[in-house]
Amino acid sequence: MSKSPETKEISLQVDVNYMMSEYLGAREGISREEIQAKNQEFQEAVRHLKNKRSEMVWRDLPYNQDQVTEQIISFARQKKDACENFVVLGIGGSALGPMAVQQALNHLYYNELPKEQRGGWPRIYILDNVDPERFTHLLDIVDPAKTLFNVITKSGSTSETMAQFLIVVRLLRDRLGDAYKEHVVATTDAVKGNLIKIAQTENYPLFYVPEGVGGRFSELCPVGLLPAAMAGIDIKELLRGAAYMDQWIESKDEIWENPAYLRAVLHYLAYRKGKNISVMMPYADSLKYFADWYAQLWAESLGKRRTLAGEEIFAGQTPVKALGVTDQHSQVQLYTEGPFDKVINFLSVGQFRNSVVIPAGYEDIPAVSFLGGHTLNELMEVERVATEYALVQASRLNATILLPEVTPFTIGQLIYLFEVETAYAGELLKIDAFDQPGVEEGKNATYALMGRPGYEEARAKLNARPVKEAKYILKN
Amino acid sequence: MSKSPETKEISLQVDVNYMMSEYLGAREGISREEIQAKNQEFQEAVRHLKNKRSEMVWRDLPYNQDQVTEQIISFARQKKDACENFVVLGIGGSALGPMAVQQALNHLYYNELPKEQRGGWPRIYILDNVDPERFTHLLDIVDPAKTLFNVITKSGSTSETMAQFLIVVRLLRDRLGDAYKEHVVATTDAVKGNLIKIAQTENYPLFYVPEGVGGRFSELCPVGLLPAAMAGIDIKELLRGAAYMDQWIESKDEIWENPAYLRAVLHYLAYRKGKNISVMMPYADSLKYFADWYAQLWAESLGKRRTLAGEEIFAGQTPVKALGVTDQHSQVQLYTEGPFDKVINFLSVGQFRNSVVIPAGYEDIPAVSFLGGHTLNELMEVERVATEYALVQASRLNATILLPEVTPFTIGQLIYLFEVETAYAGELLKIDAFDQPGVEEGKNATYALMGRPGYEEARAKLNARPVKEAKYILKN
Repeated sequence: MSKSPETKEISLQVDVNYMMSEYLGAREGISREEIQAKNQEFQEAVRHLKNKRSEMVWRDLPYNQDQVTEQIISFARQKKDACENFVVLGIGGSALGPMAVQQALNHLYYNELPKEQRGGWPRIYILDNVDPERFTHLLDIVDPAKTLFNVITKSGSTSETMAQFLIVVRLLRDRLGDAYKEHVVATTDAVKGNLIKIAQTENYPLFYVPEGVGGRFSELCPVGLLPAAMAGIDIKELLRGAAYMDQWIESKDEIWENPAYLRAVLHYLAYRKGKNISVMMPYADSLKYFADWYAQLWAESLGKRRTLAGEEIFAGQTPVKALGVTDQHSQVQLYTEGPFDKVINFLSVGQFRNSVVIPAGYEDIPAVSFLGGHTLNELMEVERVATEYALVQASRLNATILLPEVTPFTIGQLIYLFEVETAYAGELLKIDAFDQPGVEEGKNATYALMGRPGYEEARAKLNARPVKEAKYILKN
Repeated sequence: MSKSPETKEISLQVDVNYMMSEYLGAREGISREEIQAKNQEFQEAVRHLKNKRSEMVWRDLPYNQDQVTEQIISFARQKKDACENFVVLGIGGSALGPMAVQQALNHLYYNELPKEQRGGWPRIYILDNVDPERFTHLLDIVDPAKTLFNVITKSGSTSETMAQFLIVVRLLRDRLGDAYKEHVVATTDAVKGNLIKIAQTENYPLFYVPEGVGGRFSELCPVGLLPAAMAGIDIKELLRGAAYMDQWIESKDEIWENPAYLRAVLHYLAYRKGKNISVMMPYADSLKYFADWYAQLWAESLGKRRTLAGEEIFAGQTPVKALGVTDQHSQVQLYTEGPFDKVINFLSVGQFRNSVVIPAGYEDIPAVSFLGGHTLNELMEVERVATEYALVQASRLNATILLPEVTPFTIGQLIYLFEVETAYAGELLKIDAFDQPGVEEGKNATYALMGRPGYEEARAKLNARPVKEAKYILKN
């Protein structure tokens, strides 16, 4: 991908000082020696991950999408004017990535701005639940005839998305007849599954989820790129940022120099020392939904049962979403005085897109007037530093990723960094980071209860489950 | 409080079947015997909590606010027409309760509806961060001259809220001169603190946080009631629901009959068995922010360091926010196959406010067409049951609270239930559930770094902290 000469190549900074025993002491902190002692094992995992690269199709998304990127941009431009709303029908990876990127790079009240202040781009809604109230309420504010619906499911067998799709198609068809097709665009597998059949029959515009790219690793393919482009986000810069991060990662085999490997190793060792919780706490509203996106990536990739040397092991840190400074007034009490069971990850922003001065006032009340003359920007950063300080005083593991600015280029880096970090953590845990067998039981139970053909046996098994005891259900 | 005869008294249902060994087996489940063995201790805690009732001012909020409730309703009616926007300046308890209640009881896209579809009530924004982008962006969509700002801080020394307040006052004054006072209403302590001084001097309308009511227990006092009333929510019904729950709780001293005590005991025993995580997973978009409100209540109340018999103990389950069915595609893999380290709490809704039929279609594709004829309502509930089933199959502790309907009356119950449950859990853990000493270090560090007079020593200490080592900061 060619580089626009005017774009700065700003690198993320990965700061792990406060994971280390130098600052936190020997009991809680991780020592260089601990890492060195396992260096061979860690290097083995590096080699293993490198060998698997060709299987990990998502690794090459920053490089092999020139053509589809142009198609997406051209499609978005073509739809832009007629389209008041762009609604994603999707769940999981099809929703969390788009949400994170929209929140990061658009106005924080984007949908409430007049269209011209949105650069002429449509409002964006991401319908990631099947709550009947949410659906009904969305239709109260969105006119389907002025809306483009992007149905996203690789397999076309995601019950939630297909249910939404059936409702939307009926609605559009009743309103618009055959012209309804102008209002649908599908993102799905090119060959397999149910949605591709329908999309081809109905002749919807189509974008493909590349073979081998799973939901939670799909933000940098059309799953994420189309919704981003529909809001005027520079998707080439997103990909260029990801490529930049990939080159950084690939150029450093040494754990100590590699941001993804080092963060993964430290989380792995922390997990081994009983830190079964990983908090993601951006200090910026723009990065709020990165915590949600990370939560899926980390939980679904690493939360795995495996058998190792005959022993059954249940692995995985539980991700927790937080937001600075807001959650200082909600969670930090627990983080500083509660059990030593977590790692706190800060995302910090070097330079916000604007600055707000706190005016002087109430000079007779020093407990208020000291704020005057500072900026909100300073207050945000000071509070993050103060929280970090309090955590270190209490010997709590924490790490920081600094985004010097929030741009498509740095966001692309962040996505790619976390993806590789997760894949590498999977290597260390010796689990498959790319499957999700644990959702099958629930999925099959849903199919069974909804009467999907072929699930009669599962239904019988379900219906044979013990009835709940009334004594354990309390009502007034 | 008098009861409207037409209102149904619907009781919440608290279902703890799947916390019990009868279903989960002896290793993971909790047995009746385990509870009975400690029954004396639990009863002791019940008595202790009852004795403390007079200190817990929030316990009586459902009863002693007839007058202030009328004042709030009358104030809201008076402001309604002239006011396009109502903006809360507050953080922590001043924001999380209002957010949870708005989301529960209003249209899910409330702010995007035209005013007449909001019953003539203003849009509601809750500004719970000091992010300069958020502040600037809010002013892009909100005209201060058409806005009422509700500054909420008990002490008036909450840096975030007072910084927002200083900015807003300057902005309003520059635009409107002395008439700016029409656009401010303060909620604060009646006597102590900085905001009361300012509010009295400037003659703002005032509502009081009752003495002894802490932030996270303040939703049922004017902190929460005013924002709710400004969106047309029936605050008398909220309080009546809370009173109803209180009477239920107070009438049952027996653990097995008491929803708050039983849930607290089960969480306590689970925690003792290594479940250091408590997930709150509503299956309804309307209840989404109840998870956030609960997360503060549970974390800040129970996340405590204490010394017991000479030993230092660090207590507290970490609350995790999730949303059904959405997070089935994000977290449930971890919940079913990851470590046995959590309790999952479902909030389920009996009857949604509307119903959406999934139309038939694509009869040639049975993997899609089986959905036709069902409703989204069924799908939501089936998926919750399927997830519960999968968790039980994997021996994972889970419990459900059913709201037969989401109304101010049931929401009042839910708030009060969780508050008492938390207070009782505090008794079991032998900690003070009502303080938050662990946030002091960070707060003082913020004051010190922002140059507040009197914090010079703290600043010196901070500045003397070890410099971060460059080798632990990676950049490209």
